[in-house]
Amino acid sequence: MAALNALPPGSLIGILGGGQLGRMMAMAAARLGFRTRIYCDRFDAPSFDVASEHIEARFDDEAALERFAKGLAVVTYEFENIPLGALEAVARHVPVRPGLKALAVAQDRLAEKRFLEELAIPAARYIPIDRAADLETAATSLGFPAYLKARRFGYDGKGQARLDSKGALAAAWNEIGAVPAILEEAIDFACEVSLIACRGRDGAFAAYDLVENHHEKQILRQSRVPARVPPEVGDAAHAIVEKIMVALDYVGTIAVEFFYLGAGDRPALAGRQGDARSHARAPLIVNEIAPRVHNSGHWTLDACLVDQFENHIRAIAGWPLGATWRHSDAVMRNLIGDEVAGWRDLAGDGALALHLYGKRESRPGRKMGHVTRLLGGSSDSDAPPGGEAAD
Amino acid sequence: MAALNALPPGSLIGILGGGQLGRMMAMAAARLGFRTRIYCDRFDAPSFDVASEHIEARFDDEAALERFAKGLAVVTYEFENIPLGALEAVARHVPVRPGLKALAVAQDRLAEKRFLEELAIPAARYIPIDRAADLETAATSLGFPAYLKARRFGYDGKGQARLDSKGALAAAWNEIGAVPAILEEAIDFACEVSLIACRGRDGAFAAYDLVENHHEKQILRQSRVPARVPPEVGDAAHAIVEKIMVALDYVGTIAVEFFYLGAGDRPALAGRQGDARSHARAPLIVNEIAPRVHNSGHWTLDACLVDQFENHIRAIAGWPLGATWRHSDAVMRNLIGDEVAGWRDLAGDGALALHLYGKRESRPGRKMGHVTRLLGGSSDSDAPPGGEAAD
Repeated sequence: MAALNALPPGSLIGILGGGQLGRMMAMAAARLGFRTRIYCDRFDAPSFDVASEHIEARFDDEAALERFAKGLAVVTYEFENIPLGALEAVARHVPVRPGLKALAVAQDRLAEKRFLEELAIPAARYIPIDRAADLETAATSLGFPAYLKARRFGYDGKGQARLDSKGALAAAWNEIGAVPAILEEAIDFACEVSLIACRGRDGAFAAYDLVENHHEKQILRQSRVPARVPPEVGDAAHAIVEKIMVALDYVGTIAVEFFYLGAGDRPALAGRQGDARSHARAPLIVNEIAPRVHNSGHWTLDACLVDQFENHIRAIAGWPLGATWRHSDAVMRNLIGDEVAGWRDLAGDGALALHLYGKRESRPGRKMGHVTRLLGGSSDSDAPPGGEAAD
Repeated sequence: MAALNALPPGSLIGILGGGQLGRMMAMAAARLGFRTRIYCDRFDAPSFDVASEHIEARFDDEAALERFAKGLAVVTYEFENIPLGALEAVARHVPVRPGLKALAVAQDRLAEKRFLEELAIPAARYIPIDRAADLETAATSLGFPAYLKARRFGYDGKGQARLDSKGALAAAWNEIGAVPAILEEAIDFACEVSLIACRGRDGAFAAYDLVENHHEKQILRQSRVPARVPPEVGDAAHAIVEKIMVALDYVGTIAVEFFYLGAGDRPALAGRQGDARSHARAPLIVNEIAPRVHNSGHWTLDACLVDQFENHIRAIAGWPLGATWRHSDAVMRNLIGDEVAGWRDLAGDGALALHLYGKRESRPGRKMGHVTRLLGGSSDSDAPPGGEAAD
């Protein structure tokens, strides 16, 4: 680390995007003595409340982007759907980390699939779909169930449609907006897991423990750490994620979502696909790469000495990475839509850390906050916050 | 708690004072979804960087104070030397918590002493000094060594002078600025401890574990939790602090600093003072009340689910208090003056949580940040951060 120029405290860090991820990044930056400037196209961006400066402008406003870049020591982004053009405009003036390559790969599901193929990293089989007419042949080839996913601008299940039969093809195509897409086999997984990892400017790699995730309506509901999978699964995930980060020349925090297919005796995919690149032999297949801090890493705020946001800031500032060990097991649960109205009761639960994002309006499916419960040693204490069973 | 009107997330909280305590309060408020408005007389106040709004104005600027108060749901303060008049001006428009009584007591060492006497809480013996001529008689009565302390505006040893002999009286009087003062006996303590506690609007009381503090040049150097004192000392501290908080009708986080006199066989004070109010029988005597979050509570940021800043915000907002248990033992060490220049090495120490306050200029004695080391189970791991021995 000594050879690199680390940004001194007091430096001004730019963040593109003003949602809760940018907000928690800005607070992490402040803890390290940095100042932040947020750029967002929403007047009421939650990040604005905790930043030294902010600019409210559209992401295609080149003059505003230039104003944003001026005086910044480094720029990062809080979500992968920021127009690449905006980042390119900024990158002419100031280093952008993680780099544009990570963003380009993560913005396009087809590019992401091809990137994983190049690295021989197992992923679900897919077929590119450029027009409605491609669908039937592809579906016949892949089988059902399958998912039709728009190549761009998807998150929280947006731009996705599930296909259970040929009769559903036309509706699904319209549902995703009749845009370039991929058709992807549905994976019969044992559980979903994710790995939050960080890479420094010096190439140092550090990862948190594997997280077990539960989604509802394609939105993350709950994350639990450690994931209830064999230890070698965590090792495999570390190896895959480091490979991805090296290939992207990545600097910062990344999240990679996986499907864990379970132990060898599960019949799930055996013999179902004859493809040479079949994942049937791999316990883990990559579902998605998020080139940023991630919802499934929010538990690190309360269970680790250094959280995913601070490690992201450390990395992009050229600082040494902080510790990724955790002092406690944890269950993080999102507060979605009107669930946030229960803040009084949640605040009164002495075992919960409560995080609210300062969003002025609650809407269905909108992430309004989260709670983290630290788990004690006994296995019966791992009921998730909110009282629902984990499965 | 149900009967009280808790402020909903999104409410605007005012903070008088813009230093690192206000900064960490503002971040805690943001975590709970509150917005903050900071008032400070310094253009470069560290808090401004993490607040929704800020006002830079003098504390005697009534118009600015009125502008500040407008639209706030509640006001608090980050240090006790804010002019009482400023708080009174604000209190005409919006509730101020903790209330003015706590501030009045904490701002004046004589008022503080008399308050403790009324509650029959042991404190060091003292004699009020209104003019130079009072000093000799008082010193003869109290003996040496003793401390001459200005009644007002003292912190970090400012406004204090140590007296070892009669020959030092005149110089000490001039050193503290020839202002109304108290002369206080020097206490031969085993160690200094402090208790950080919180009281809700509903009267709920919660305290963190007793902290062991080490000062250098009258500035806090290091805090260690748990304090190495018998458990009953912690219980005694809890009882004293709750008594203080009830008497002040206190809402928020408080810090009370104590001298722990050690086990009964210590000869320190035995027979030295014949006074009926002698503390010789008490293991703990109160040194100082700080009606606010406190430097010796910074370890709660990294070792507790809910830290002192968040519990302060919860209390003044009428929310239930959060958990005060800690998941780890900890040692917190201040970064004073140029020590902050060592940020690279500190950031590279994987066992430290690093907090920098964003102050633009380092000056001797100025608190620039702190580091917290979480301690493992083994007793040999409690070397303080920075490598110096604890004593």
